Amino acid sequence: MLAESAYGKSRIRIVQLQRRSSLHTLCDLTVAVRFEGDYDDSYAAGDNAAVLPTDTMKNTVYALAARDGLQGPEEFGLRLARYFLDRNPPLRCVRIDLTEHAWRHITIGGREAEHAFERQGGGTRTATVEMTRERTTVGAGVSDLMILKSAHSAFAGFVRDEYTTLPETHDRLLATSMTATWRYENTETSFGPTWYAVRRTLLETFAEHDSRSVQHTLHAMGQAVLERHRDVATIHLVMPNKHHLAFDVSRFGLENRNEIFVATDEPHGLIEATLVRHGGRTP
Amino acid sequence: MLAESAYGKSRIRIVQLQRRSSLHTLCDLTVAVRFEGDYDDSYAAGDNAAVLPTDTMKNTVYALAARDGLQGPEEFGLRLARYFLDRNPPLRCVRIDLTEHAWRHITIGGREAEHAFERQGGGTRTATVEMTRERTTVGAGVSDLMILKSAHSAFAGFVRDEYTTLPETHDRLLATSMTATWRYENTETSFGPTWYAVRRTLLETFAEHDSRSVQHTLHAMGQAVLERHRDVATIHLVMPNKHHLAFDVSRFGLENRNEIFVATDEPHGLIEATLVRHGGRTP
Amino acid sequence: MLAESAYGKSRIRIVQLQRRSSLHTLCDLTVAVRFEGDYDDSYAAGDNAAVLPTDTMKNTVYALAARDGLQGPEEFGLRLARYFLDRNPPLRCVRIDLTEHAWRHITIGGREAEHAFERQGGGTRTATVEMTRERTTVGAGVSDLMILKSAHSAFAGFVRDEYTTLPETHDRLLATSMTATWRYENTETSFGPTWYAVRRTLLETFAEHDSRSVQHTLHAMGQAVLERHRDVATIHLVMPNKHHLAFDVSRFGLENRNEIFVATDEPHGLIEATLVRHGGRTP
Amino acid sequence: MLAESAYGKSRIRIVQLQRRSSLHTLCDLTVAVRFEGDYDDSYAAGDNAAVLPTDTMKNTVYALAARDGLQGPEEFGLRLARYFLDRNPPLRCVRIDLTEHAWRHITIGGREAEHAFERQGGGTRTATVEMTRERTTVGAGVSDLMILKSAHSAFAGFVRDEYTTLPETHDRLLATSMTATWRYENTETSFGPTWYAVRRTLLETFAEHDSRSVQHTLHAMGQAVLERHRDVATIHLVMPNKHHLAFDVSRFGLENRNEIFVATDEPHGLIEATLVRHGGRTP
Repeated sequence: MLAESAYGKSRIRIVQLQRRSSLHTLCDLTVAVRFEGDYDDSYAAGDNAAVLPTDTMKNTVYALAARDGLQGPEEFGLRLARYFLDRNPPLRCVRIDLTEHAWRHITIGGREAEHAFERQGGGTRTATVEMTRERTTVGAGVSDLMILKSAHSAFAGFVRDEYTTLPETHDRLLATSMTATWRYENTETSFGPTWYAVRRTLLETFAEHDSRSVQHTLHAMGQAVLERHRDVATIHLVMPNKHHLAFDVSRFGLENRNEIFVATDEPHGLIEATLVRHGGRTP
Repeated sequence: MLAESAYGKSRIRIVQLQRRSSLHTLCDLTVAVRFEGDYDDSYAAGDNAAVLPTDTMKNTVYALAARDGLQGPEEFGLRLARYFLDRNPPLRCVRIDLTEHAWRHITIGGREAEHAFERQGGGTRTATVEMTRERTTVGAGVSDLMILKSAHSAFAGFVRDEYTTLPETHDRLLATSMTATWRYENTETSFGPTWYAVRRTLLETFAEHDSRSVQHTLHAMGQAVLERHRDVATIHLVMPNKHHLAFDVSRFGLENRNEIFVATDEPHGLIEATLVRHGGRTP
Repeated sequence: MLAESAYGKSRIRIVQLQRRSSLHTLCDLTVAVRFEGDYDDSYAAGDNAAVLPTDTMKNTVYALAARDGLQGPEEFGLRLARYFLDRNPPLRCVRIDLTEHAWRHITIGGREAEHAFERQGGGTRTATVEMTRERTTVGAGVSDLMILKSAHSAFAGFVRDEYTTLPETHDRLLATSMTATWRYENTETSFGPTWYAVRRTLLETFAEHDSRSVQHTLHAMGQAVLERHRDVATIHLVMPNKHHLAFDVSRFGLENRNEIFVATDEPHGLIEATLVRHGGRTP
Repeated sequence: MLAESAYGKSRIRIVQLQRRSSLHTLCDLTVAVRFEGDYDDSYAAGDNAAVLPTDTMKNTVYALAARDGLQGPEEFGLRLARYFLDRNPPLRCVRIDLTEHAWRHITIGGREAEHAFERQGGGTRTATVEMTRERTTVGAGVSDLMILKSAHSAFAGFVRDEYTTLPETHDRLLATSMTATWRYENTETSFGPTWYAVRRTLLETFAEHDSRSVQHTLHAMGQAVLERHRDVATIHLVMPNKHHLAFDVSRFGLENRNEIFVATDEPHGLIEATLVRHGGRTP
């Protein structure tokens, strides 16, 4: 009766401080570990003989970080995945999800304070490593990147039916809290620089696109990533449409100049798509 | 390059008040609509000719509720799905997710106040309808049901390695915020009564189970649902292990009687599984 | 330059399990401790000689619970406050805030499961103890009690100006997530039963009131508490007006029967007031 | 019996787009309006004759923004407060709270995209205007500024008692999510530049301080603001101590080098203080 199962530890929060030079650096991660494998007896019979406790998974995260350093999220995820797979025979597939909380040095008069940091904004960096005995997949992403266009955003020419009240528009605010996740072609990518470059491509394409819809811009963003970053095999984008409704001030004898908007969170449109490189396999 | 796509409207909040008798009743739902179909041109070319705006989806939710009433979440989801599928030729699969915010009448001296309500606790009822031109699937669920066992919960006999520090225990607090989702065998089920009965089975099994692990109890709960509710084809359970750590008071010259615990949210174990009826198809 | 200061520990989560009979009971609290006193040297000079670490505050919470039991939130708050005041000469005023997460036994066939619990809904119980060397104040409250009236709720006869668009209404949904906090006349009250009785008075008055505005109903609720509960010296109520906007379905050729509403969180009205017993002192 | 009351509208979200040049600019605010005055009849008698509906408050926010522009939060707050006070005779004190959601232009090759924005991090700017018929107070603040020190942070020499387990430390991580609010000496300040300068002083002082405790650093930060910014009359700082606990890896045969930490949210220390300029009045 047991068709699928998984177990693991979530929200393992680890900060590593590098004191090797006088300029400290920080790596601040939240890690989740997820095991799939031959653990049916623990479910069906309560037999824990094969079960690595999730508490031990957590300890392992801290121990490997202490032993070898965190480096980047993808590298650390690969090391963890390999470690678990090597030592747990029933384990078929291990997945490590990592979220980085980025800090930058506080600057004082143009100079970096060596031991003081402020949290960086601009979307959260994520990484995912999935490893079986046959295959390793590394993915990365940026979540909750809040972006807004105040021109070159239209929505027109759509289906109209008895319940349509939306007017066509050629000049609207388009705002979203974008989440993108992509999978790399292989595990040899230079993950850090690529992440920053992909994020930049997403931002620039969003900024420059002449948008006929969220779908249209989302597609352009994914396409640009696949074209400019050969290491990226496939990308999934999710863009909630955080509607900014023009507030009608003509009721008050004022001219509607399309300048005053009500920002809303709900309801929101929700647009998503996965793009793959030509000849690539689906995710 | 476009491998998959979907679009829709999320967090459509609708409340319907029934005034037919002097005793008012309320149906309070949050609805999400999700379309998959032949919409590639809207992504790749910015051509919206086939696109039903998400604003119209929202209007349709309110209009159908006004015309025919909300009834239960599953019935309303079925009606919405059918409506959208009938009128949108490019639509291949429509998914309606519904969350019910349950209210009960305030009681005064044992009698129900006819027009006054308080929000009910005890986990949130959810429903999902997925409809294609070939097939309709109805699912339901309960999310964030917070439950706790203070006896008959052990965890022992597990793998020990160099990073193991967890002691075996035969007497721990087991607390979780359970989320279960199940799929019905068909679309003819009496959804409301079944939902309450499944929720009851989950609670009772959790209460009575002699637990050797979260996995063990989760499996017993899913198994009980499949055994007692023939309408349920498959069930997926997710149970975070909200660890309650014994606080060591022996440091203060007090006896540790396993009575004082620190409740924690992170890190937490995360256990999940899908159970299917013998001979059933996987979800 | 230092005009005011306070320090303490927040979000101390403690669960106490009572195993004295075969029927277990649980007390689940989140506690905050706050010290005000002669601690200026720790701020101005970094001199910690008078400072009880917040870590020790936390340990004390667990130790006193282990030694004497949690009993109710108010009693435990009184015990903690007295303990801190007795042992810390610079301490002028200690405040203990307590939030109870209530659990009830799961029932199976009408009988209570002895060791299994589900979280109770219906608003959160809070308590506050404030103690100086001269005076002790005990307060209690209920927060986030979600309530709704579907009749006997009007709003009319208000000021109209050039920016008024709101129509008068004699039949609207009134929904709120009420928070009430009250102060007791003395520290001898039977806190548990009183809390349940006050909560009941609030619910019943809300249900039965013929409301001309949120202000009007809020006042009636506070007044009823002061009239029926002589132990309550003063009560503060906060009621956000969670607007439920009628959705206009006449645009779709359907009759507006004032049955379909859009539930909203923002913007919301926010109404608050403090009521004191005649002859009482202000809070 | 009615000792105090207030009513208003919260979470009014307004975005103003400035299109005057080809380089668009955005002002994105969440506004709350709060009235105190002679409104007792609305509470006690349900008489709304003096009540300006909160819906009209909301409309006024949009109308004044459309008529005169948003400018900065403090200026807009002053304009709103004045407007309400002029037109509502029963109004004694109006308070406007404003939160700014800052956006910056996306840059492409070092050049600013004219119509595309990303949300800025680094703490949220807040402002508060309080106006009576006699006096106007303008305050500002920064909330949730996440900062961390990895050196020059000690905590030692504190009180030890039977429940003390915390070791003294001369080298700990100090992390906080700081919230500061300050009041200006008058209403003529150049609010925008001052806000950025105060935020900078807070960051720099935090970075450079040789900390003996959170209290000590908080005081130094407040003192620096009062010394460097003569326009600031008083400042209130709140600094939760987001403990980073050293993870003991010696259990695993590894050397504890004070590099691996567990970041925690609860429990947390909570330190606050108000500093006033010599000769100034308390807030």
